[in-house]
Amino acid sequence: MLRTLADLFDAMETLSDQLYQSRLAALRACRPLVHCITNDVVQEMTANVLLAAGASPAMIVAPEEAADFAAVASVVLINVGTLRADLVRAMRLAIESAKAHDKPWVLDPVAAGLLPWRDAQLAELLRFGPAAIRGNGSEIRALAGLGSGGRGVDSTEDSEAALEAAGHLARLHGCVVCVTGATDFITDGERVLSVGGGSETATRVVGTGCSLSALAAAFIAASPGQRTEAVAAACMMAKKAAEAAAAQAQGPGSFRTAYIDALSR
Amino acid sequence: MLRTLADLFDAMETLSDQLYQSRLAALRACRPLVHCITNDVVQEMTANVLLAAGASPAMIVAPEEAADFAAVASVVLINVGTLRADLVRAMRLAIESAKAHDKPWVLDPVAAGLLPWRDAQLAELLRFGPAAIRGNGSEIRALAGLGSGGRGVDSTEDSEAALEAAGHLARLHGCVVCVTGATDFITDGERVLSVGGGSETATRVVGTGCSLSALAAAFIAASPGQRTEAVAAACMMAKKAAEAAAAQAQGPGSFRTAYIDALSR
Amino acid sequence: MLRTLADLFDAMETLSDQLYQSRLAALRACRPLVHCITNDVVQEMTANVLLAAGASPAMIVAPEEAADFAAVASVVLINVGTLRADLVRAMRLAIESAKAHDKPWVLDPVAAGLLPWRDAQLAELLRFGPAAIRGNGSEIRALAGLGSGGRGVDSTEDSEAALEAAGHLARLHGCVVCVTGATDFITDGERVLSVGGGSETATRVVGTGCSLSALAAAFIAASPGQRTEAVAAACMMAKKAAEAAAAQAQGPGSFRTAYIDALSR
Repeated sequence: MLRTLADLFDAMETLSDQLYQSRLAALRACRPLVHCITNDVVQEMTANVLLAAGASPAMIVAPEEAADFAAVASVVLINVGTLRADLVRAMRLAIESAKAHDKPWVLDPVAAGLLPWRDAQLAELLRFGPAAIRGNGSEIRALAGLGSGGRGVDSTEDSEAALEAAGHLARLHGCVVCVTGATDFITDGERVLSVGGGSETATRVVGTGCSLSALAAAFIAASPGQRTEAVAAACMMAKKAAEAAAAQAQGPGSFRTAYIDALSR
Repeated sequence: MLRTLADLFDAMETLSDQLYQSRLAALRACRPLVHCITNDVVQEMTANVLLAAGASPAMIVAPEEAADFAAVASVVLINVGTLRADLVRAMRLAIESAKAHDKPWVLDPVAAGLLPWRDAQLAELLRFGPAAIRGNGSEIRALAGLGSGGRGVDSTEDSEAALEAAGHLARLHGCVVCVTGATDFITDGERVLSVGGGSETATRVVGTGCSLSALAAAFIAASPGQRTEAVAAACMMAKKAAEAAAAQAQGPGSFRTAYIDALSR
Repeated sequence: MLRTLADLFDAMETLSDQLYQSRLAALRACRPLVHCITNDVVQEMTANVLLAAGASPAMIVAPEEAADFAAVASVVLINVGTLRADLVRAMRLAIESAKAHDKPWVLDPVAAGLLPWRDAQLAELLRFGPAAIRGNGSEIRALAGLGSGGRGVDSTEDSEAALEAAGHLARLHGCVVCVTGATDFITDGERVLSVGGGSETATRVVGTGCSLSALAAAFIAASPGQRTEAVAAACMMAKKAAEAAAAQAQGPGSFRTAYIDALSR
């Protein structure tokens, strides 16, 4: 079992391009229906990223119908960015329904470790066994009980510094944990995949991280038996699209446009 | 009276370019104030589409002020995408106020036929006599009681297959029904206008459909005596803009940008 | 004391380019964390404008955590566009916390003067002493008790006509008041700075005004001792970016993209 940072680094693998292409083909073949209960800032970006990549997004947020929709969706994405009490109720109902219908759910713990109420909600949600968690270094460390959060929604830790926390969190909850940064790391507590590349400009466009969590959910739905590879494939798709976008962008505005274009190819 | 699909096809007309130009000129002359109670995913897209086309959007959503604003707006748009109980209250109050002040309202029944709570709210809203309904094939069939909904927010039916349902719904509620797809059909139950063209890429950009409903509301406000033509003009404007956007776009990201540019011309 | 419009015009200054550059350098050096409780339509635009300019946005909206976050943020932005009762509670808690921790807050009084419930909430919020208020001519006149609001969210008054109201409002609340339009005026009731330039296309892109209020908040956080200059610097940054965007845009869609690119330079 990988318990130390040295173990994790020794075990590091990269995702082959062939495996990436096969997971992407699976995504586009099944066009998973992603039930998103996400934050208000990134709703459009999340929907457009999923559509460009080849998935089908749907934002159903009322407690009165969240469970019904999770039952027919392929996967549920939970993002706590602009959390409110009514959204927490909808999230709980969607997750319970997903579990009851053997559908996976993915957690994006935005700003974990900064605010007591949010952390209490996250602790409750985590009891329902997510298939994957995707966050930045500060969020993953905070969720593992090893740090006190970043600066607002931005990380104050790089992804490498959070790798040990990611491994711990993965073993604790029996899920895939993805910590993103200059290099993305994806681990199930036994294996570690790393994905490099990308562009620093992505950090200046709101929703690139949040929509990557949605993309990870879509890939998991399309490749249920290979969750670690599925999440790594989502990271690789985002990194490749960011590189393509950076090559033609004049700034974060045109980067966003080119990023969505690139995801559609 | 057009009761069968054959009747509807026999009655099919197209909107002349001259009539389109005159309805667009009317829109830009009166710059209608469109009170939008719409879903969280498409708020910005809806506002930018209305602004580009020459209308004035305003999103006023609190039950405490929805009625007051509907009274001064030119038209009310109701879109149930991310429906919540508090939004339903605001919608009811806005619609009742619109009716009391002789203002039209337009319904976008996102995801009709999929979820019982949503369908119950839609049934209630329909009792207040919309001026027009705009949806995809699955939504229009579901609303007419002839189908059980699409796949999430996407249609599983083409617009042609829903034309009979559109005619039925139009007669039932005494309103214009617009079913959009590769070809858009607009009917009041007596006449049918068809609008072709457009681009398939529009289906991969979130909010193109929802913002078309808002555009239909704006055209209705500017051409109160010609509601069928007004809705057809909105569809033609969207189809033309989609064609222009597709001609220069590299993917759905740049399509969205070019689509809004094209609407402003 | 500047009491008449003639006094205000006589006192008019412009912001030197040197002072602008120094305030921008201060912004980028301290990367202020802007706690935004803003309207649903402009959330993404606001976040992307702040990120492009060099600030760090965070949207924390639950009453359960708004006070905790305001305590650690650099500044709080309050925008009442899509006001709802739960948001009012969160705003009150964030503002009280900001005051308790000596953090400034900025008010964007969207659609002031049109709707009684909104005006009552605005009156309550104003009692908590904002550092600055940014609005269009109609909103500033309404807030000063001198007008009855614009047309929806659009102004029916130019910024010049509202200058006297701005001076009155600034003295009444001991804050900076910024009235934007073809020319922006920024006054503390004693001095008046004017910022010209920009592009008319900005009025056809949703969120340019709302995100300018957020930018003003960021500049104030970075230049606490020079609030009038800080707000004028935000206006100048927006005007310059609008000019650069207009020079290359084909319409409001590409203007929005180029505007965010320009802010990042």
